[in-house]
Amino acid sequence: MQRIIDFILELDKLKAVTRKTRPLNQDRFENSAEHSWQIALLAASLAPYAQAGIDLDRVIGMLLVHDIGEIDTGDTMVYVEEGLAERKAAEHAAVKRIFGLLPAEQGAHFLALWEEFEQGETAEARFANAADRAMPVLLNLANQGQSWKENGIVYERVVKRIRPQIEAGCPALWTYLDARLADEQRKGWFGTR
Amino acid sequence: MQRIIDFILELDKLKAVTRKTRPLNQDRFENSAEHSWQIALLAASLAPYAQAGIDLDRVIGMLLVHDIGEIDTGDTMVYVEEGLAERKAAEHAAVKRIFGLLPAEQGAHFLALWEEFEQGETAEARFANAADRAMPVLLNLANQGQSWKENGIVYERVVKRIRPQIEAGCPALWTYLDARLADEQRKGWFGTR
Repeated sequence: MQRIIDFILELDKLKAVTRKTRPLNQDRFENSAEHSWQIALLAASLAPYAQAGIDLDRVIGMLLVHDIGEIDTGDTMVYVEEGLAERKAAEHAAVKRIFGLLPAEQGAHFLALWEEFEQGETAEARFANAADRAMPVLLNLANQGQSWKENGIVYERVVKRIRPQIEAGCPALWTYLDARLADEQRKGWFGTR
Repeated sequence: MQRIIDFILELDKLKAVTRKTRPLNQDRFENSAEHSWQIALLAASLAPYAQAGIDLDRVIGMLLVHDIGEIDTGDTMVYVEEGLAERKAAEHAAVKRIFGLLPAEQGAHFLALWEEFEQGETAEARFANAADRAMPVLLNLANQGQSWKENGIVYERVVKRIRPQIEAGCPALWTYLDARLADEQRKGWFGTR
């Protein structure tokens, strides 16, 4: 029991890992713990648009654990492509440490979910990745492109970075976002070069 | 698709609902969104101590949605027993409104999870309630009784309020907490009358 308690208290640190997106109508940055909760519910809500036969419970499990490595590494905006391989290796080491706090069987269960998400090869992992990519976009579409403007992210860079994963994981969601993004581009809700 | 998006953006408001507990080593109060994430993982981690045959995925689903009504009502500390029936009725109305943003089938799915949690009659609901009750206790045991001291909650009141649900839902967790709480009482990590 003590190992489980140590693990869950270690997870508390994810509440201090901040992202670049701000919750709607709040000045602060969102943290990776509340983000993980929201995308788990996004994936569950998108059930009607998931591939037939997909295991949504495994999708939710992946989304709940996918950012835990950031406890050691911090969050990096998805548009930062430099050093990606090194960051992923560091996150992998981090989750091995953190899941290693747990009894072996539970730790292995969470690590398998984390690795499945990162590999992105199963239908469940693709769907989970689509939800993860889409959520900050949805927030930006609701707050006039806040994190794109603050970080100088242009329209083309958004589309290039998020389209492949969202389209592969949840085509209907990409169709929706594609139209919304084009509309917002006309409004100027993106960074400038 | 637009109804799902409207729902997930409405959920963003739970990131602004604050509780009485502070995340470890942070001055701010924790919010109900990050709390929901953490207890979902607490329940998943406690799998070895769950009743045989329990559906942990449904437990996780309940925990992800159980606080959503607070978007309209705010959070009230578990030790405030006055007005409990009215608060629960208000939360029920709130989740009907919020889940009603979704397509009917998805909304009904989440509402059923919320109601199962509140009724607390299935093994899954009892386990979920135990995780929900235990988490702020675990944080208080790790931060010298912060929310108990700040709100004048004495040892006997903690035990009286949390024991029935934790013991019913996860007896091994209560055995662990019972010993820890008695130890912390000797250290004075509780409020005074």
